Amino acid sequence: MHGSMNSGSWESCFRSELSDSMDSENRTIINSHPPRPVIENVEPEIEAGRFPAKRILNDKVNVRADIHADAHDLLAAAVLYRKAGEEEWSESPMTLLVNDRWEGSFVVSQLGLYEFTIEAWIDRFASWKSRLLKKVAAGQEVSQDLLIGAELIRHAADRASREDSLLLQNWAESLSDPRLNLPTKTDLVSNSMFDLLMGRYPDRSASASYDRILTITVDPEIARFSSWYEMFPRSASAEPGKHGTFRDCRKRLPYIAGMGFNVLYLPPIHPIGRTHRKGRNNTLQPDPDAPGSPWAIGSDEGGHTAIHPQLGSMDDFRDLIRKARETGIEVALDLAFQCSPDHPWIKEHPGWFRRRPDGSIQHAENPPKIYEDIVPLDFETDDWKALYKELFGVVMLWIAQGVRVFRVDNPHTKPYSFWEWLIREVKQAHPEVIFLSEAFTRPKVMYRLAKIGFSQSYTYFTWRHTSHELRTYLTELTRPPLAEYFRPNLWPNTPDILPVHLQFGGRPAFQMRLILAATLGSNYGIYGPAFELCENTPIAVGKEEYLDSEKYEIRHWNLQQSGALSPIITRINTIRRENPALQSDRNLRFHEVSNDQLLAYSKHTDDLSNIILTVVNLDADNVQSGFIKLPMEELNITTSRPFQVHDLLSARRYLWSGTSHYVEINPHSMPAHVFRLRRYVRSEKDFDYYL
Amino acid sequence: MHGSMNSGSWESCFRSELSDSMDSENRTIINSHPPRPVIENVEPEIEAGRFPAKRILNDKVNVRADIHADAHDLLAAAVLYRKAGEEEWSESPMTLLVNDRWEGSFVVSQLGLYEFTIEAWIDRFASWKSRLLKKVAAGQEVSQDLLIGAELIRHAADRASREDSLLLQNWAESLSDPRLNLPTKTDLVSNSMFDLLMGRYPDRSASASYDRILTITVDPEIARFSSWYEMFPRSASAEPGKHGTFRDCRKRLPYIAGMGFNVLYLPPIHPIGRTHRKGRNNTLQPDPDAPGSPWAIGSDEGGHTAIHPQLGSMDDFRDLIRKARETGIEVALDLAFQCSPDHPWIKEHPGWFRRRPDGSIQHAENPPKIYEDIVPLDFETDDWKALYKELFGVVMLWIAQGVRVFRVDNPHTKPYSFWEWLIREVKQAHPEVIFLSEAFTRPKVMYRLAKIGFSQSYTYFTWRHTSHELRTYLTELTRPPLAEYFRPNLWPNTPDILPVHLQFGGRPAFQMRLILAATLGSNYGIYGPAFELCENTPIAVGKEEYLDSEKYEIRHWNLQQSGALSPIITRINTIRRENPALQSDRNLRFHEVSNDQLLAYSKHTDDLSNIILTVVNLDADNVQSGFIKLPMEELNITTSRPFQVHDLLSARRYLWSGTSHYVEINPHSMPAHVFRLRRYVRSEKDFDYYL
Repeated sequence: MHGSMNSGSWESCFRSELSDSMDSENRTIINSHPPRPVIENVEPEIEAGRFPAKRILNDKVNVRADIHADAHDLLAAAVLYRKAGEEEWSESPMTLLVNDRWEGSFVVSQLGLYEFTIEAWIDRFASWKSRLLKKVAAGQEVSQDLLIGAELIRHAADRASREDSLLLQNWAESLSDPRLNLPTKTDLVSNSMFDLLMGRYPDRSASASYDRILTITVDPEIARFSSWYEMFPRSASAEPGKHGTFRDCRKRLPYIAGMGFNVLYLPPIHPIGRTHRKGRNNTLQPDPDAPGSPWAIGSDEGGHTAIHPQLGSMDDFRDLIRKARETGIEVALDLAFQCSPDHPWIKEHPGWFRRRPDGSIQHAENPPKIYEDIVPLDFETDDWKALYKELFGVVMLWIAQGVRVFRVDNPHTKPYSFWEWLIREVKQAHPEVIFLSEAFTRPKVMYRLAKIGFSQSYTYFTWRHTSHELRTYLTELTRPPLAEYFRPNLWPNTPDILPVHLQFGGRPAFQMRLILAATLGSNYGIYGPAFELCENTPIAVGKEEYLDSEKYEIRHWNLQQSGALSPIITRINTIRRENPALQSDRNLRFHEVSNDQLLAYSKHTDDLSNIILTVVNLDADNVQSGFIKLPMEELNITTSRPFQVHDLLSARRYLWSGTSHYVEINPHSMPAHVFRLRRYVRSEKDFDYYL
Repeated sequence: MHGSMNSGSWESCFRSELSDSMDSENRTIINSHPPRPVIENVEPEIEAGRFPAKRILNDKVNVRADIHADAHDLLAAAVLYRKAGEEEWSESPMTLLVNDRWEGSFVVSQLGLYEFTIEAWIDRFASWKSRLLKKVAAGQEVSQDLLIGAELIRHAADRASREDSLLLQNWAESLSDPRLNLPTKTDLVSNSMFDLLMGRYPDRSASASYDRILTITVDPEIARFSSWYEMFPRSASAEPGKHGTFRDCRKRLPYIAGMGFNVLYLPPIHPIGRTHRKGRNNTLQPDPDAPGSPWAIGSDEGGHTAIHPQLGSMDDFRDLIRKARETGIEVALDLAFQCSPDHPWIKEHPGWFRRRPDGSIQHAENPPKIYEDIVPLDFETDDWKALYKELFGVVMLWIAQGVRVFRVDNPHTKPYSFWEWLIREVKQAHPEVIFLSEAFTRPKVMYRLAKIGFSQSYTYFTWRHTSHELRTYLTELTRPPLAEYFRPNLWPNTPDILPVHLQFGGRPAFQMRLILAATLGSNYGIYGPAFELCENTPIAVGKEEYLDSEKYEIRHWNLQQSGALSPIITRINTIRRENPALQSDRNLRFHEVSNDQLLAYSKHTDDLSNIILTVVNLDADNVQSGFIKLPMEELNITTSRPFQVHDLLSARRYLWSGTSHYVEINPHSMPAHVFRLRRYVRSEKDFDYYL
């Protein structure tokens, strides 16, 4: 049994001390009374501080807490914060909001882990002043009170700088000077200069500290705002049938950067096993030249630290990373911690794999599914520390090549404790690295993976289609406490999933799902070129897998195909880049619509200078129309004048007034409006200006 | 700065060990992999276990938690619980509800503190069985799987009793017996007898323990269900003008017990100070024979441990307690930790009081209010331990006289740490004692006092009058997490508060507020006889204090006065006693009404065998009517037949059908219905029976 009653430390100390004193009359050990203020319900705090909240470099972290004490004294409080590992705390004052809720903030200006906590104390000077002025107002006798105040000021003077000390001493003298009359003294007390002075030298000898030190993980901007493009390097050759290389990928960079993506995610790039290699469409009898699944990692040519020879060399890979970064793109690598039966580890570390009674190695299975070409690592092996260390080494090796972004394959099939350890160790050395969790599993498992360190996570967005589903799910994901640690990354498709609504909705469905992903989520991604070319044939009716999936064969894509979505992708990514409202999920709000086939939602910056209202027709076939109700007051838009909505997709502008607005959307022209709301600024003669 | 990162203990251990091993290749210290299951979001848990949740003797405590692990293994879990101080844990199994939420329970059969926590482990046998049967169903080869299962069973046999061990060994043999065919083996695996057997001997070597040990305070029944009657003993004499005594109180017992109260609360019974004694209506110039406020405690005749001589002797008081208990009534004492300027402590412990610069003692004030007859104790005195000890002694002295219930005056003007310590120490010796907090202050302060130990609390009910106010407030109070530790006690009036709606609503308003208090709250109280005699004259227009308040003078009450509310009080307390639904606040639900002047709500027992629907007309002047919508499905009442509502106030019965019901209430006959809902049971010829 770990742990014990989690009482505050003065508490337990106080208790035993007091009990001692009860027994022995020895009252010398603790002489000062325990601190009176209480600090509780702190935000952000995840599981009593067990996990850090997540923020982005240069974010202002708002810290809130209920702070109160007995009696009628006024309080003061401060947030104490520091970069983890630093000795000294910095401090920032908290202010009372309402109902004993206090707020303070600090800016996180370095990547990595921060620590913070709260201190609160009785503000004896402010309490005295407030009582005194009330008594004066009620005409009560205050001569003794003035002397008490003078004493408080003298004590502050003892703590003050020389200059301030002189000022304070003189002030104390004046308050106790019998020659001065009450109005003069009251004026002195009311002088706000003295509040400032006294505020500098509070008596914090009896201040209360919050029980816990809480933590914040500070990630790079890309953890909050990223547009992912997934592609198979082996399909990147310009020549049909030829195995693509990193050099081919390099040539594809202008196309990907041109569409506005900033992450290029490659499925595993390692040597592929031969034993039980899968053929086209996941068959067990492959052609002799079948390339196999890139997730069946490891062959004579190496394992997780090697590159599949047909893709090129390590130099080619480093070159791709460099060139990509020059175009604003990070290359994301796939961490798939599993092996083909030919992986070198199987000989080098036989203990890392579970064996069956007949001595054969257990392949991966999730009955009735069988993955003959893959054997899982046994994380519970007695030799687990060596295994952990090896996997840590794998990550560090790719970081050394320049990788900053990892997409982690099926993290939910490896122990939580492994990931928590791995991510912490990696981020301690490289806080600029981020991890995307590909955990399409039960919600609480997904959320736990986020808590223990994953920077982003795949979501059920891929299967959320109706208005009700999207509203409920996205609302859940973007509200605290979840939003403090879980960052959704929305994917309309993946190499594993061609959702039903894409199979039947044609090009409008692809457009609709693209716009939803890109405007609902500040992080989103597509698996291309299948997506932008509207590839929508499943392997069989009722299945969500692609026919002729790139997982098992090399494909050749005609990027110039007519109807390709690259122009609209380019447009939507430009809109995302130009509108900070779309670069975070903090302020996503759904709005009432009279027609359930329309989904309306807005995002805005905290200062409301940038407001994006998106209205999507969820029906890929028919024109839908309805009335949208906007919370004008919340958006700080006056209803006394019209305001402008500027459709950033079509570039059309409309004047709206009031709170209820008619919208009609034909999915065959464009299944959505992405409006920027512009407030009325001024009118010059016949011209109205909107900001 | 107290505390540090609150990580689970294996975590920190694991981390340093692993880091060591990374450096030194020494992998001998921790060889087993950290436990894979995760236990989180435990209920009940208050502030990460800092405070106990509250329950009543013999309650079943339901414990819930999210429990999950990586991969597809099945889990098992148990609640571990014990009386605090015991060495051994008892255990009760948890079951999966849905969405990784598990539930288990245990019964608290002793007063005092319980501890509980949770353990979870991979159920390797159930996981194996589930996978095996899926593979069999898919026609896959399972010979190796059967051998794996046989091995699991053999391991269980090693842990089993002799008899079970033989059974298990034989079973393992059969599974590995090449002479038996697959269907025979599958039948064996499916035999639920073996689930039972294997369930007895789980492999818990790698089980995960929850990080914290949580606590439950088990209180006596009266903490959850109590009907309080407050009266001034000095006004209890049958003879007008004469100072009442404990003997007079004894004579009043049949009257109070007859109305159905089970707590008789007396304002302070200690000697009253002379210095600055208050006169009638809180004046500063008292008549020579003015009795003074009982809250100005202490004179030459003694302080908090003495009895005001005019009330009688300690023997008389003990006798009152005894006789009261015989009629089912507990006598509640007032703990008002403050002094008159004549209190013996002022001489004996001058250091316990704050002094002004001129050496005089600081009297109580909350500017512009001044309490000249009271001096507060200085809880921050250097001598605070002696003060704490003395106050503890006061409480123990009255407990020694038989007191089990304390009403605490203004607890929010004394430090939280004092109460937390005091209540814990008292309840450790006397878990049967309960404390009611008279904290009419800011909500978070009230809630904190409940967290740190108060068994019940006064509320704002006294000032909540409209339908919206009552709904919102009572909903807040009766939902988790607040309901886990805060027990509201609803008072329509107190000696300090004659609320405006009682001043102007006449007898119907008194009836209405009585019924609201007694049916909204399982704990409620009235200040009598002012209440049952409908005393409603304030000291001045716009004030909420009583004219000729008993706080400052002796009153004589004519209990036989016509229109006295004793019959309706008797009725409502009988209804409360006879209907368990009204004896807890767990299941309070408000219902939709078409008229805002009507308030409708129900309470029911967990098994829905007792359902009380109360409908109150909040308008004390006019007849109001409207339709009530009931959640029939939630209440498990069929809508296919009529059901009976039986008004327990008027004894009238009505047949209702459907979900929407018309109600009309004339406040001048009775401002409410208190319906018991009776389901249709059977029909015999012309007679229908309702339960």
